[in-house]
Amino acid sequence: MMRWVLWGALLMLAACAGSTEGASERQKEAAQMQEQEKADYAIVIHGGAGTILRENMTPEREKAYRDALNAALDVGEQILQEGGSSADAVEQTIIFMENSPLFNAGKGAVFTSEGKNELDAAFMSGNDLNAGAVGGLTNVKNPIRAARAVMEKSKHVLLTGQGAERFATEQGLDTVPADYFYTEDRWNALQRALQKENQGTGALLPADYKYGTVGCVALDKAGNITAGTSTGGMTNKRYNRFGDVPVIGAGTYANNATCGVSCTGHGEYFIRYAVAHDLNALMAYKGWPLDKAANHIIFEKLKPAGGGGGLIALDAYGNVTMPFNTAGMYRGYAKPGEREVGIFGEE
Amino acid sequence: MMRWVLWGALLMLAACAGSTEGASERQKEAAQMQEQEKADYAIVIHGGAGTILRENMTPEREKAYRDALNAALDVGEQILQEGGSSADAVEQTIIFMENSPLFNAGKGAVFTSEGKNELDAAFMSGNDLNAGAVGGLTNVKNPIRAARAVMEKSKHVLLTGQGAERFATEQGLDTVPADYFYTEDRWNALQRALQKENQGTGALLPADYKYGTVGCVALDKAGNITAGTSTGGMTNKRYNRFGDVPVIGAGTYANNATCGVSCTGHGEYFIRYAVAHDLNALMAYKGWPLDKAANHIIFEKLKPAGGGGGLIALDAYGNVTMPFNTAGMYRGYAKPGEREVGIFGEE
Repeated sequence: MMRWVLWGALLMLAACAGSTEGASERQKEAAQMQEQEKADYAIVIHGGAGTILRENMTPEREKAYRDALNAALDVGEQILQEGGSSADAVEQTIIFMENSPLFNAGKGAVFTSEGKNELDAAFMSGNDLNAGAVGGLTNVKNPIRAARAVMEKSKHVLLTGQGAERFATEQGLDTVPADYFYTEDRWNALQRALQKENQGTGALLPADYKYGTVGCVALDKAGNITAGTSTGGMTNKRYNRFGDVPVIGAGTYANNATCGVSCTGHGEYFIRYAVAHDLNALMAYKGWPLDKAANHIIFEKLKPAGGGGGLIALDAYGNVTMPFNTAGMYRGYAKPGEREVGIFGEE
Repeated sequence: MMRWVLWGALLMLAACAGSTEGASERQKEAAQMQEQEKADYAIVIHGGAGTILRENMTPEREKAYRDALNAALDVGEQILQEGGSSADAVEQTIIFMENSPLFNAGKGAVFTSEGKNELDAAFMSGNDLNAGAVGGLTNVKNPIRAARAVMEKSKHVLLTGQGAERFATEQGLDTVPADYFYTEDRWNALQRALQKENQGTGALLPADYKYGTVGCVALDKAGNITAGTSTGGMTNKRYNRFGDVPVIGAGTYANNATCGVSCTGHGEYFIRYAVAHDLNALMAYKGWPLDKAANHIIFEKLKPAGGGGGLIALDAYGNVTMPFNTAGMYRGYAKPGEREVGIFGEE
């Protein structure tokens, strides 16, 4: 494991410490960063945030989620342990979560108001700030593969709708019939949403709302950070609405010099606050450490504005953060000798 | 005209001055800001950037552009002079430019590789960070009106394709047949692009490429900043590609506490660098003045990366900036007693 002390010092020099903070706090933060060693690798995931309460969850269902989160981390951690790239780790981990019906992405995607599934995904490389995103896919099995293909095989960043599907098909990605995305749980959730709407109690966001998304950020042995996000969007969404997932800078961002981040929550707020880029900016321009910057955005900016959700992120040293202002967030991380998965707020 | 000295001082306190800069420079900047008075109103526009050279332009065509830029400024300035909102000024100014065949937005939109027109627009209010955007419209006469309607009449931020058109129709916006967007110039530009492509010399971005977009940012008497952007995208674009225009934080952003901004250029780079939000972040977190922050992004970040383009922006005092790293940019601004329009680099 190499010492990245010099880089830490350079990062602090390049960054700018807030003039409203005491000099002693800045010195403490600088000292902390200079003392850090880069973790050999690190990976962090989320499976959506929302009103996820222990009392509403059976032990069987809770176990199914914890098992799925651990299995997803296994996929990415093995790639990283063997010296694979963070891009491969993020793609394969998200494919695993897309293929699970437990999460609102790929196979478990929610339904639009018209009873369809429209899937969005994004992928970004912190090494060169290259990025790819897709919005409104209906027949691509793994949207995260399409987002990575846009980044690597096109001159564009954001492809949408039938055009994005044509691109994905040309790239040889697997397509599926529309009923592949059908799951009874999600269909029933749409029926409940439509019923509430017809009764005039139709808040777009019922009390038990979950902001379903999956995301993964990884740091590989070479020091490259990659971030990815994939979602089926909001139950009962209309008008080919895109949330924050295909919007680079809102739901997803990565820069080796600062951090990689994937968000989950009420997408409109994450767009308006450019959350993923803002985390990078607070680190780059104020010199704030990852944890402080992430907590500031989730609790001091989004929460007062009514923007429910959370984020996962890691920095160049492998420090990990997973803050959320909702009751729960499916989440987990792994690095050498460390592993944690969580669902509820009090864990 | 009221003194906003106190607000200036507070802004400086809230902001953070870069620790890598000398204290004397920070003090100078702080003193400059504290001395500033807020302009009664201000408006700034662009009509696209690119390889716009005096030697390729007839005097008649140059005059047509200068007249159109002045007429567009007239529209917005009158609204602001009469105490109207920056939202109305931005919307009406952009409608004027969309209706002109000179600019790549609305009536003058470029063609996709399939010979269609797909229009994008964004609108953002610096007062409450509310925002609206549309992508891939084919039949809405004025996409900027659709973007504002998404902001004001929906719970969403980004609507796309046929869904966005359905929303616009429900809002009573004017629709037009596809041939409304036909102009001979743009059709010929597509034929040239396709021909080059077939000859294998088909760079996506020929030497005479113009990043066509229109944008407007305004500050009204009440101190509210609004930003808007509208475009037909790239000639010969494929796969329902979206550029930076519908991506809030990339091509458009507004925050009364910092600035409003509208970008024009190679959209993929503006997305990857989250340019519009980055300008806000440099001002908020480093305490940099508008001009310094805007020049840094255009010349120190985008230009070395190969991202051609420019931006227009103004801050809470009505300071205006219009930097670009291309040969030219159609641009102009107006505030009480001041007016300037420009096209080429040396002006």
